[in-house]
Amino acid sequence: MTDRYFASDPAQRRIARDIYRAIAALPIVSPHGHIDPRLLADPAATFGSPAELFVMRDHYVLRLLHAQGIPYESLGIPPRQGAVRRGAETETDHRRVWQLFADHQHLLRATPTAAWLAMELADVFGIAESLASANAQAVYDEIEARLATPAFRPRALFERFGIETLCTTDDAADPLEPHRAIRASGWPGDVRPTLRADGLVNLLDPGWRGHLEALGASVGRDIASTSDLLAAVDDRRAYFKAHGAVAIDLGVETAYTGSLEPAEADAILARALRGEASPDDARRFAGHLIIELARMSVDDGLVMQLHVGSLRDHDSALLERFGPDLGADIPVATEFTRNLRPLLEQFGNDPRLRLILFTLDETTYARELAPLAGYYHAVRIGPPWWFFDGLNGISRYLDAVVEIAGLANLAGFNDDARAFCSIPARHELWRRASANWLAGLVTRAIVDEPAAFETAADLAAGLARRTYRLDREGQ
Amino acid sequence: MTDRYFASDPAQRRIARDIYRAIAALPIVSPHGHIDPRLLADPAATFGSPAELFVMRDHYVLRLLHAQGIPYESLGIPPRQGAVRRGAETETDHRRVWQLFADHQHLLRATPTAAWLAMELADVFGIAESLASANAQAVYDEIEARLATPAFRPRALFERFGIETLCTTDDAADPLEPHRAIRASGWPGDVRPTLRADGLVNLLDPGWRGHLEALGASVGRDIASTSDLLAAVDDRRAYFKAHGAVAIDLGVETAYTGSLEPAEADAILARALRGEASPDDARRFAGHLIIELARMSVDDGLVMQLHVGSLRDHDSALLERFGPDLGADIPVATEFTRNLRPLLEQFGNDPRLRLILFTLDETTYARELAPLAGYYHAVRIGPPWWFFDGLNGISRYLDAVVEIAGLANLAGFNDDARAFCSIPARHELWRRASANWLAGLVTRAIVDEPAAFETAADLAAGLARRTYRLDREGQ
Amino acid sequence: MTDRYFASDPAQRRIARDIYRAIAALPIVSPHGHIDPRLLADPAATFGSPAELFVMRDHYVLRLLHAQGIPYESLGIPPRQGAVRRGAETETDHRRVWQLFADHQHLLRATPTAAWLAMELADVFGIAESLASANAQAVYDEIEARLATPAFRPRALFERFGIETLCTTDDAADPLEPHRAIRASGWPGDVRPTLRADGLVNLLDPGWRGHLEALGASVGRDIASTSDLLAAVDDRRAYFKAHGAVAIDLGVETAYTGSLEPAEADAILARALRGEASPDDARRFAGHLIIELARMSVDDGLVMQLHVGSLRDHDSALLERFGPDLGADIPVATEFTRNLRPLLEQFGNDPRLRLILFTLDETTYARELAPLAGYYHAVRIGPPWWFFDGLNGISRYLDAVVEIAGLANLAGFNDDARAFCSIPARHELWRRASANWLAGLVTRAIVDEPAAFETAADLAAGLARRTYRLDREGQ
Repeated sequence: MTDRYFASDPAQRRIARDIYRAIAALPIVSPHGHIDPRLLADPAATFGSPAELFVMRDHYVLRLLHAQGIPYESLGIPPRQGAVRRGAETETDHRRVWQLFADHQHLLRATPTAAWLAMELADVFGIAESLASANAQAVYDEIEARLATPAFRPRALFERFGIETLCTTDDAADPLEPHRAIRASGWPGDVRPTLRADGLVNLLDPGWRGHLEALGASVGRDIASTSDLLAAVDDRRAYFKAHGAVAIDLGVETAYTGSLEPAEADAILARALRGEASPDDARRFAGHLIIELARMSVDDGLVMQLHVGSLRDHDSALLERFGPDLGADIPVATEFTRNLRPLLEQFGNDPRLRLILFTLDETTYARELAPLAGYYHAVRIGPPWWFFDGLNGISRYLDAVVEIAGLANLAGFNDDARAFCSIPARHELWRRASANWLAGLVTRAIVDEPAAFETAADLAAGLARRTYRLDREGQ
Repeated sequence: MTDRYFASDPAQRRIARDIYRAIAALPIVSPHGHIDPRLLADPAATFGSPAELFVMRDHYVLRLLHAQGIPYESLGIPPRQGAVRRGAETETDHRRVWQLFADHQHLLRATPTAAWLAMELADVFGIAESLASANAQAVYDEIEARLATPAFRPRALFERFGIETLCTTDDAADPLEPHRAIRASGWPGDVRPTLRADGLVNLLDPGWRGHLEALGASVGRDIASTSDLLAAVDDRRAYFKAHGAVAIDLGVETAYTGSLEPAEADAILARALRGEASPDDARRFAGHLIIELARMSVDDGLVMQLHVGSLRDHDSALLERFGPDLGADIPVATEFTRNLRPLLEQFGNDPRLRLILFTLDETTYARELAPLAGYYHAVRIGPPWWFFDGLNGISRYLDAVVEIAGLANLAGFNDDARAFCSIPARHELWRRASANWLAGLVTRAIVDEPAAFETAADLAAGLARRTYRLDREGQ
Repeated sequence: MTDRYFASDPAQRRIARDIYRAIAALPIVSPHGHIDPRLLADPAATFGSPAELFVMRDHYVLRLLHAQGIPYESLGIPPRQGAVRRGAETETDHRRVWQLFADHQHLLRATPTAAWLAMELADVFGIAESLASANAQAVYDEIEARLATPAFRPRALFERFGIETLCTTDDAADPLEPHRAIRASGWPGDVRPTLRADGLVNLLDPGWRGHLEALGASVGRDIASTSDLLAAVDDRRAYFKAHGAVAIDLGVETAYTGSLEPAEADAILARALRGEASPDDARRFAGHLIIELARMSVDDGLVMQLHVGSLRDHDSALLERFGPDLGADIPVATEFTRNLRPLLEQFGNDPRLRLILFTLDETTYARELAPLAGYYHAVRIGPPWWFFDGLNGISRYLDAVVEIAGLANLAGFNDDARAFCSIPARHELWRRASANWLAGLVTRAIVDEPAAFETAADLAAGLARRTYRLDREGQ
């Protein structure tokens, strides 16, 4: 296990092992992810059952079981209130959900999910055996017992994992109560909110009006025009920043940007408020808002993250019955060069802007993202995202971008975790993969060993810290 | 030769060799290909000359020779009747075609075609020497002599190759006489037809009307409406199924799907019958038919194969002079996420549907196919198709899809062969490539050896058997 | 250093080393690049300062420093006359530019630029140390001293580098004075012009009218119609050919081709002359001209190079302030299959045409370029271009295209250099990368050693020589 992920070639493996050893214990910098801050707000919070922790909240797992015909209900996922009953009853016995999971471990074979699970069981829970049908209940017992101890409360694990900074992702209108509670509690864990603007930017999102109203409520003003909207977002950015935020996040289907005249923007907003916005309206309004969000980042210094190219809720029946984020978001081909030009021509070389681009279309790594990041001062390339967070995904990423953009224009690693206990496993996989990749450069005399060690530490933590300007923040 | 295709690293090679040894002799499951069933219908059928067997019927070979300026005529390909004579006379001396082939072996260097040829000569014909100018006629003699023996009749080779099941590809209107003859003969070889619907789906195909008329004739009814057309296809599906078919196949330039109102579909069909269909008509009609074919698969359980993204007959002069399938089909960029959504929202999670997606656009492996197959119950990812059936093509495929979709959502291997004697070579290449790929997982501790052996057998035969529901069929 | 770029595996490394040793000293064939012919026209020409040689004229370096916030002015790049002053003064002390470059070597880590620099310092200038902050001025001294000696004049280096042929890239209207001077001087170096037609083909290029007028002046006729334009280009082709040209070059954003009726072409030209051409006009006019340029190549035998997919001057503020070719050209997704069909149907199998396709979209390697080159007689695949000239870029290229198109349909290597001293380094990187790639084929028994040695020599020089028909030229 100590050589997991390292090349078989003895020379490369030896160097990979040395490099990894030097970075394995570095603090975890986690500037982007989806951990629920309530876990850390209440010192007595717990993770729920093993099934909740490892199965029911992990869309990576759910989708792969579903693809082989296992219904969400059997995995303990309840239909939304009011959804028509079809097929199976929702399983409420978490031990049976766990057993089903154990019975289907082969479906995860050779995926990063399997790797994370093995690492979590071994390193977090001290369970050396692989999960299988036969030991499922015994493993459940062990995990459950450990979860009941104070050492397995979220704050305790936060400390044990060596997390230096953890940024959550929060709705723009969120009052950030958990974050306030964390700060008020005196607990020294560095947990920061991130303002997510998706709900406001996409006029065709069924929840758009709700997001808009929540935003209005959060600033105590009605939103009747684009300037109202932008002013409200600006207020919320200040609020988030006052609560420690270093970044905003935006998820969009395309990277289209383009400024609108105020009257045009207002006309579109008016149509949207009447429920009459067209797809073209939505595209142009989003393109306008992205530029305005960048303009605000120039002013307030919040790092801007752009996650592009996920077609959310591909299976609308799933959305209707069970809700979002259950494994049915599918990538689409993505274009950055032409789409981002209006934004980049305006702000791309402004040292106050930091724009991190995430893609689900690997063809853009070398063709678009690396050339853009290798020229524009503001641009950084986000780490391999979502479907690409396995060993091959990471290797392809490094192979594709570094020759073109160098290493300094990478954003470092984000774990993007929803499952708290997977955080160290995800960082370990990244660190092992990058150590191995660097060892390959050393054996081929592309970089020397000192440079490889320095780079490994940068990839593990330094780049993320600097990209998100956490090095400028009081810790 | 025993280590062909295995990594040079000794640890990986040793494991690859062990894995390969365990799967090398597994039966050949060939659920998709283009073997002419007449070869197996007549116990006395023969393969023709060595030139026919290895050159004149293999578009992989023809195109590479043509690209360096060798005319099709010199390779024994006769112009279509009525085609204007240009340049060379058609070579009728197969020994001269063979010599030309031997003289240009360097043009095949490092391609899978060269690998298959070497394996066929060595393993099927017992000729250890490499083909070259000097030995061309001697090799021709040896092959010709062997082909004249009963041991080299198609049925004998079928048995020697260890073919468990062979599915052919047949026009929807085909009376399946050869298949009837095979079954009637008492010979136990498991040969099954596959209904191919391409000719009916593409309104702009110059042969469309001919296909439609043939379909009408095959069911004894005129086809005047879309419902006539669908009813006729449904009849033919039943006929194919009664003759052992487990699947249908459809080749389309784009994966667009979308249902039409019956009146709309009929209006398009009427325009097509008047020769007035527009490209948009053709696209929408095909999109409608794909959904209807899926609906029928839900009903009758025939596995649905979708081969997407070949722009057929790129060089229309070649088509006109010599006909189709001679090496001038060129891939185009392909989109699945948005295009298949209407179909998948309707049937994607129906356990009765099995939809295998084949692509000529490798960018869709990780971006679209693996995420779709990793969620939708009906979807399986077809093996690397056509231009991608070499060692690198296979490695890229496995590297790209498995981390995202796991192994259970792959369709296993299809040889897609037109040349009967290349079948074992194509399976050997796939098995060696996958053994080597799995060995790489073992050396890096991503899977353990037992899992690797189990997976190797699945990739070699099990997945194909289960994907095409051959495990449910009486053998 | 002797094993730089070779795989760590001892068996592969040993073979890679043997192969490389056999090709390292082959002559350099450089059929495409951007060397200024004036360097070779004047026997006393010099390269300027070390900063000019390594930094100020190399957009690979400039962009990576700029991306980390170093202004072009600090790198000695003067704003265009009349450009508004912003920020820093232009640095005129080349030693300070050099120091800045030395201080930021880590920004180049793991890029091909770093590799070329190391090779140039070591092999051209005999400086074994790596450049760093501490030795920057001492290294400057050494380079400056060497540059002052006759052995470091361009012609002397041309001979020392073993350049067999060097093709430059010249405006269609260029009188080719330096080329005439080289020929007149009696110096035997084989330096040839290449006619570049970009400026004439793109109606929306701000310099289009200037290029058109220069073309008219160069042939002594007004250009008032498309036939005038084509006749003028044809005259210039003859002039270039008489001065040794073997090729033309064309850089376009898309590969769209399509013939226009003469009246249509003239109407577009008239709109362009009135400054009223639309983007669609520009696209169609370019598509027409590409076909006409191919038709001329059929007639005069000049090899046609098509460089597709660079969106030039993405940052228009940079263009305005400093000019083109400074690192802000960004690739876009590219399509060849449909776009080139009209051209290829007309001339794709004409043995008189040789069409080399270069792409900045790696997805087209296996999907479009290799299938096209593997069928059409005229088509060759250009080597990895620009952003893809590093070790990974080269490996991906060979892995993607050779299985599909074989080796004979590759164009061999182009260094595409702007920096004269980087020529041998670029060839060395390519030769090492291809030696290593071939060694990988040998260890896996895909090709045998003799074939690998033969292929290595072809990739190093033979293919380029034959592709550009230099083997038919008197040297």
